[in-house]
Amino acid sequence: MMRVRSAAAIAIHEFFRENEFFLVHTPVLTTNDAEGGGEAFSVTVANKEKEKNKAEEEFFGSPASLTVSGQLHLESAAYGLKRAYNFNPAFRAERQQSRRHLSEFWMVEAEMAFLDNFDGLLFWMENMLKSVTEKVLQTAAADFKYHMDHVAPKNHTALIEKMAESSFVRVPYDEAMRILEKHSMQFNTPPKKGENLHRDHEVFLVKHCGDVPVFVTEFLASCKPFYAREMTGDRSKVLAADLVVPEIGELFGGSLREHRYDVLRKKCQSAGQLETLGWYLELRKLGCPPCGGFGMGFERYVQFLLGIPSIKDAIPYPRWIDHCAL
Amino acid sequence: MMRVRSAAAIAIHEFFRENEFFLVHTPVLTTNDAEGGGEAFSVTVANKEKEKNKAEEEFFGSPASLTVSGQLHLESAAYGLKRAYNFNPAFRAERQQSRRHLSEFWMVEAEMAFLDNFDGLLFWMENMLKSVTEKVLQTAAADFKYHMDHVAPKNHTALIEKMAESSFVRVPYDEAMRILEKHSMQFNTPPKKGENLHRDHEVFLVKHCGDVPVFVTEFLASCKPFYAREMTGDRSKVLAADLVVPEIGELFGGSLREHRYDVLRKKCQSAGQLETLGWYLELRKLGCPPCGGFGMGFERYVQFLLGIPSIKDAIPYPRWIDHCAL
Repeated sequence: MMRVRSAAAIAIHEFFRENEFFLVHTPVLTTNDAEGGGEAFSVTVANKEKEKNKAEEEFFGSPASLTVSGQLHLESAAYGLKRAYNFNPAFRAERQQSRRHLSEFWMVEAEMAFLDNFDGLLFWMENMLKSVTEKVLQTAAADFKYHMDHVAPKNHTALIEKMAESSFVRVPYDEAMRILEKHSMQFNTPPKKGENLHRDHEVFLVKHCGDVPVFVTEFLASCKPFYAREMTGDRSKVLAADLVVPEIGELFGGSLREHRYDVLRKKCQSAGQLETLGWYLELRKLGCPPCGGFGMGFERYVQFLLGIPSIKDAIPYPRWIDHCAL
Repeated sequence: MMRVRSAAAIAIHEFFRENEFFLVHTPVLTTNDAEGGGEAFSVTVANKEKEKNKAEEEFFGSPASLTVSGQLHLESAAYGLKRAYNFNPAFRAERQQSRRHLSEFWMVEAEMAFLDNFDGLLFWMENMLKSVTEKVLQTAAADFKYHMDHVAPKNHTALIEKMAESSFVRVPYDEAMRILEKHSMQFNTPPKKGENLHRDHEVFLVKHCGDVPVFVTEFLASCKPFYAREMTGDRSKVLAADLVVPEIGELFGGSLREHRYDVLRKKCQSAGQLETLGWYLELRKLGCPPCGGFGMGFERYVQFLLGIPSIKDAIPYPRWIDHCAL
């Protein structure tokens, strides 16, 4: 796993270099929270100093937390560099103990200025998944084969090969909901219009579509963060897509970004982020190019590639609630 | 700067790949502190949850902090992978406001199992600095030239060329001290035997040696962390080296690691780390290969390459005390 993981990371850097993206180290310590999820870790100075002087508790002069996503920072970089990506640790203080949750994980995010085409955005995600996988199968061939022969589920190589050869399916959110509602008896949590899909919904949908990765598109605005761009003609929907893959569920999430100042300001306000995200709004104030991007959870990719059931086995030093060994 | 920085990061990944190192994502959240420096940030759950239930303050069951170095974790990986490296954010809660301090920075660390040769270790550092720089001058030629022509100090290109063509100088710590003491009038803080060199000492030493990078070797054990290996024949000294470069001072630090269980246990105990570093000691308990490695501050490298006076201008979103914008 460690050697294939390393090869996958290098393949990702190569993919972006070949496509003229610049690597940007977005910050880990931040005073804003991209998704507004409230699952951020707080950062303070170490205890012994805290005791010395309680007033110094806020080292940065305002509360700082660990990043949950570098997307907004990456957008600001993309306006200067045209194409920017990061490959960063990200953090969620989630309390669930499951095979799907980590407190510390690595994420790849890409952001493109002058991207105004939703199909183009989907193509980037499909292209990246296929190219990176192809490269790993070349550069880590022996390690991959060993894992397939001795560790992975039996049909896993076939699954990866099918992914590489197929055109990915597109299913609009409404249609996905219709399909899921027809089979709602099968789910612990029934699908509910207006909400995001749960993992078991996603896995079912992929199976339903023939075990080929599926783009869920045309999301209801309520399912996605405030910065996703409204669809022309139907303002209840946004130009956002999740790419869901066999066994894993969501692997990529992406959207065109709302670049109109007035629209974004209103949405930012409704999300209660007007104060902390003033700088983000500023980027649009004097006009800016359309922008779009996506993010991929790196551990989920490693799981998908190698058929690893628990995400904790896809990272060398896993951290989750009550577990931070070493 | 952003484009050259990106090229430098990619060149580093290439250097390691060409030399059969595996990339390891060492953890950011950790329950131990590699250097024992006490300048770590604490991590807790976000405020609103803290109020709800004070007992939950320790999300991980024990106090967690942000890593100051991934070296010890990397050692554990190197025993399995032979050659391992990371390229990670690291954190120091330093209160100095200067052109040299950041609270969040990126670090490259490498660790090699079966490395028992101190000259070999120095060669890896020299080789990496030269190879990576050569690669950047190729892949970001236009951006580098622009920066040299319009931003950098006048003699900077010559400085970089000299570095690339020269054999690096080696000066044992005792000799460095003799040189510095002769000129001690020139320093705000006079050099003091038994202590590490200050930045102005380092910069002077490099000038004294003809503006070529200098390895300071044969450090007194008191200057270096507990895990550096004792010199055979003189147990007061350790097989550690700093590579100091023009303008910047220390750019790399490296050492052979103490791999003898009994010796390490004693040193670990004197450093008061026996409890938190039990796992690290365990690695040696049943015998292990000799090991050595080095670390390089990535922002310092960007400063050196481009002749940037303040480290805050070598990273896109700088954080230091009282400053955590965006």
